[in-house]
This record gives sequence, C-alpha cells and structure tokens, in this order.
Amino acid sequence: MRAVALGGGHGLHATLTAARRLTSDVTAVVTVADDGGSSGRLRRELGLLPPGDLRQALAALAEAELGETLWAEVFQHRFGGNGALAGHAVGNLVLAGLFEVLGDPVRALDEARRLLGVSGRVLPMSTEPLEIEGEVTGLSNHDEVRTIRGQVALASTPGRVRRIELRTPARNGGTPAACPQAVDAVLGADVVFLGPGSWFTSVLPHLLVPGLHDALVRTEATKVVILNLVPQPGETAGFSPERHLDVLFEHAPGLRVDTVIADRASVPTPRRLSDAAAALGARAVLADVADPNVAGLHDPDALADCVREALGRRWSARDRDGGESREGTWR
Amino acid sequence: MRAVALGGGHGLHATLTAARRLTSDVTAVVTVADDGGSSGRLRRELGLLPPGDLRQALAALAEAELGETLWAEVFQHRFGGNGALAGHAVGNLVLAGLFEVLGDPVRALDEARRLLGVSGRVLPMSTEPLEIEGEVTGLSNHDEVRTIRGQVALASTPGRVRRIELRTPARNGGTPAACPQAVDAVLGADVVFLGPGSWFTSVLPHLLVPGLHDALVRTEATKVVILNLVPQPGETAGFSPERHLDVLFEHAPGLRVDTVIADRASVPTPRRLSDAAAALGARAVLADVADPNVAGLHDPDALADCVREALGRRWSARDRDGGESREGTWR
Repeated sequence: MRAVALGGGHGLHATLTAARRLTSDVTAVVTVADDGGSSGRLRRELGLLPPGDLRQALAALAEAELGETLWAEVFQHRFGGNGALAGHAVGNLVLAGLFEVLGDPVRALDEARRLLGVSGRVLPMSTEPLEIEGEVTGLSNHDEVRTIRGQVALASTPGRVRRIELRTPARNGGTPAACPQAVDAVLGADVVFLGPGSWFTSVLPHLLVPGLHDALVRTEATKVVILNLVPQPGETAGFSPERHLDVLFEHAPGLRVDTVIADRASVPTPRRLSDAAAALGARAVLADVADPNVAGLHDPDALADCVREALGRRWSARDRDGGESREGTWR
Repeated sequence: MRAVALGGGHGLHATLTAARRLTSDVTAVVTVADDGGSSGRLRRELGLLPPGDLRQALAALAEAELGETLWAEVFQHRFGGNGALAGHAVGNLVLAGLFEVLGDPVRALDEARRLLGVSGRVLPMSTEPLEIEGEVTGLSNHDEVRTIRGQVALASTPGRVRRIELRTPARNGGTPAACPQAVDAVLGADVVFLGPGSWFTSVLPHLLVPGLHDALVRTEATKVVILNLVPQPGETAGFSPERHLDVLFEHAPGLRVDTVIADRASVPTPRRLSDAAAALGARAVLADVADPNVAGLHDPDALADCVREALGRRWSARDRDGGESREGTWR
C-alpha cells in the first residue's frame, strides 16, 4: 500500500509515524512556506527552500523505521550558545548544502534519506520557497480585515485567521508550482492523509498549490483528514472540529474526502461534525486517538488502528465491487 | 602496508593522495591548531576542534579512493553570500555536529569517513583544540624576538619564525595530549610521512605533542620527510631546503628520519641537503616530484614512485637482514 501524508511540523510527525505502522511505502509531502527559526534564517540568507519541516519529516520516518539512529540525532541536533550558528539544526545545514550542490531539492532529499537509512520518501510540496498571506480579523475593535504575511506572523497573531493564500516571493506572487514528484505520489497513492497540524500554516497550504490540489481531486486514493485534538492559539482559537472542516472546504471546494478521523473526547457535537464531513463527501470516525500520556499529541498506534479499520471498510467495499486490484497488503 | 601521514592543509592532500597510490591502509594525523576561516569561527563559537584540516584530509582520501563523489563535494562546498553562514564549509558544520552529538572526535571522524565511503582513517593529532605560539624576528629594526600567537597570525606575519610552541588554551597552557589512536597508528605503521606543508603551522606541530613525538621516536616505521617545493612567505621566506630540516631537528632533536624526499629542481645545493639529512640520520633523495602543470604542488604519482623506490630499498635491506616479516605488498 502506498501512503502519502501532507503536512508539516509536529502534526506530520504523528501521521508519518502512524502511516509507517501501516505500510513501508510512505511519502511525506511537506509545506515549504515556513519563515521562522533556523529555516527562516537559512531561507533569507541563502534563498533556499526552508528545510526545517522537511528535516522533521525525515527524522520522523527514521524514528518510525529504525528507532534511534546517529544521523537522525545529528540532523535534529541544534547548535547552542549565542553565536552565528545558535539554534541552527545540523540537518537544516546539511539539507541547505545538498540543495546548493545538487540544485534540485528532490534529489537532495533523496540523498538525505539514504544517509538516514530511510525507505520512506520526503518531498516538498513545491520546489520554490512560498509565502503564506492571511486575512485576519479581530486585530482591532472593528470588524476590519487585515492582511498578515508570513507563517510566523500568522501563527502568532492574536487575531482570527479567515483564509490564506500562497505567494511566490521570487516571482512576484505568481502561481505556486507543485513539485512534480509530489503530484505523482498523490496520483499513485492508495491513501492520502491531510492533517493533523497547524491548520492554516501546515495543512491548508497544500490545497493552494494548484497542481497538488488537482492531483488530490483526481487521485483514486482514499483521502483521510485527521483533525487536531485542540484548537491552536493564534491560528484556530475557538474553532470547533467542524469549523476546521468548513475552512478546509472553503479553501478547496472541489475536494472530496473519504474519512475524517477525530478524537472522540475532542468532539463536543458529533452530529455537527458528521454534517460537516458529509459536505466533503466523508464519513466522520470518532475514536480514542489522543496520546493518553502527552497532552495535545496523537497516539500513533491508535491512529494506525483507526486508519486500518477505516481503510479496511472502504477497501473491502472496493473488492466487493470488483474494483481494480492494488497491493493492499497490510504490514 | 600501513601508512600514516602527519600534516594539515594542502600539503597533507598531496601526501595522502600519494600514499593512497601505495596502499589502501592510510591514516592521516591532522593538526588541530588552526584558528582561521570557517574552522576558527567554529572553534571560537562552539569550543570544538577546528574541523577544516580534518575535513580536507577526509576529502583528499575520498578523492584518491573514489574520485568525485557527492558527499565529498558537499563536505567541501562553502556557503556564499555575506550572511552568518558565508564561508562555512558544509563538512565543517557536519563535523561540528558530530563532535557535539558524539562527544568524541575520533568516533565522529570515523562516522564521517563512513558517510564519505572512505576506507582510510582521519585522526586529530590531539583531541583538544591547540594554539600555536611562535618566536618571530624581523618585525622591528632590531634583532628583537616577538611572540606571535595563533596560526593565522603566524602564517601571515612578515617576520621570520624561529621556533614554535603548542599551548592548550582550555587548560592554561598545559602539555598537549596526543590522540591515543594517533599514537597507536604511528606505532603500528610501516611508513610515516612528515610534510610537505606549511612548515611551522602544519608539519612541526605534531612533533610538539609529546605523546606523538615519543611514538615517532619509538616506531619501527620508515620515516619519510617530504620537503616543500618553495619557501612559504610569512613562514619560511628565504629558507633553503636544508634549513627546513635544521628547523625540524631543532624542534625534535631526538627524532631520527630514514628518507628525505626533495624536488630536484628545488634544491640548489644538494650536498648541503645531504648533510642536513644526515644529521637526522636520513638519506636525501632528489627526484622530479613537482607537478609540471601546477606551480607549487607535488605530483602524487611521482611522489608515490619516489616513495616506493625509497621504501623498496629499505624494505629489501630488512628482508635480507632477516627482519620481521610485515605485510609489505604494494598496491
């Protein structure tokens, strides 16, 4: 089974870990709109793709496949002190070097995963650095809508994000180009995961890259949205689970989804969630997928079980209907 | 045959390339007293061994063993621009990360050579950063002797270096501790190379690490000194080839050498060189070892041929004398 996970940051870590429990063929398609921290510094200084979310995805796959390994640890290691290197993750610097030497982020990421010994693949959603711009309300007393630019600014604004757009700073705001290999991965996938993660800055951006959006609409993969456990201050403060789905629908009206997975305890009004899921063509599945030990994190095993069950149902239906035969073996 | 090359910088590159023509068992023992460039910045910022000469040795071995490879290229790649990373070699940052994560430069260098696919080994001469201090004359009109501290300052002073000392800045000038694996390598070697290279800042420092000096005195290896092709401005301006040997003798009076290799065209007074070599117990070999195409560089093939001949003579003599049998197969 070929699984593709779209996202960024810690949310993607959870999905990749769960996906790796299901199959050895996992591809991460990662946001490249970060402008903060080590990634933001590298992006500004060298004009490269922000490497941080890509590095996190590589490390997540390495951890899921191999456990603790030296190179994953080195990749995640951050220099300390207060000098020019302070806060830079070594893996970000290695990726930056590979980007510059190879001139091709996809080849660079394939070399990095070979170094880490990872069989899963990590791809950028676009091969050019992107910028998120958001419409935000609640920053003044009036109902004024302000435009906030940049992932860090958006994620930390006290206002409420209404919708976002993606820009290509290097091309004066031209349409973001999808990474072709990411498009192929989505088209060839058996299952595609969206979320969890920072909704406006890690999950929705993928839908605003037209080539990726089209692939998500066209693919025959089972599409699974995994909702966050709690609203995120700054981005989705006060959002109900169903509001997350509404926002997704508003950003990609043509997209149909098969399954929406939500943590049972995080959904106060299951009926409303079912309705919002239905608007996307999806069935809502409530399950205990929160990590009982770490607040705010998904439990990868529980998530994997839940996905397995949801997929099993759909796949069994397919088999019954005489659908095309795919490699549907579970790991 | 086990070969060990002591040095740093470009000179060590030539020796390692030549040594790799002779045997697959090559160990570089590298100076760790650099305080300039990317190395110096890392050393000051993070308190680590300066990685630059170590990285160069790894890259030289990779090139000699494998030709052009991606990771050697990435290691040697320097970030451009004028930001915080400008001028840093990616390999220096990787080595710095490995040093911090593993807390052991020898293990870190072994991991780095595995990454590069190198079978030869690179070791630091000491596991702590060292500082070179030199007595320099000619900086004023009088015969005044001044103390100049630091490799960059010494290599660029317009004065004339008379002798150097090594200090351990972290331990208020205590005796520099030799890297134990470097000591073992010298003791177990069949041939040890000293030079070519910046005489005061890359070649002589090894002799001032007591543990390494003792190993060089005690080892049964054939000891080969390879002289520079030209005097180096700042360090050895006006030095004759024999003066290089005199300085070596002054810094390590107990050391005996077997062979001194010099480029024929670079030696104006062969008799004087023979005498200076004899003072070290060595035979001087004049040969055409300069690269005919690149001024100031040795030709690794010519150097390898010359060493092979010099060693063959000594090794044949050993066999005749019923000396201990070693793996003396040429590659």
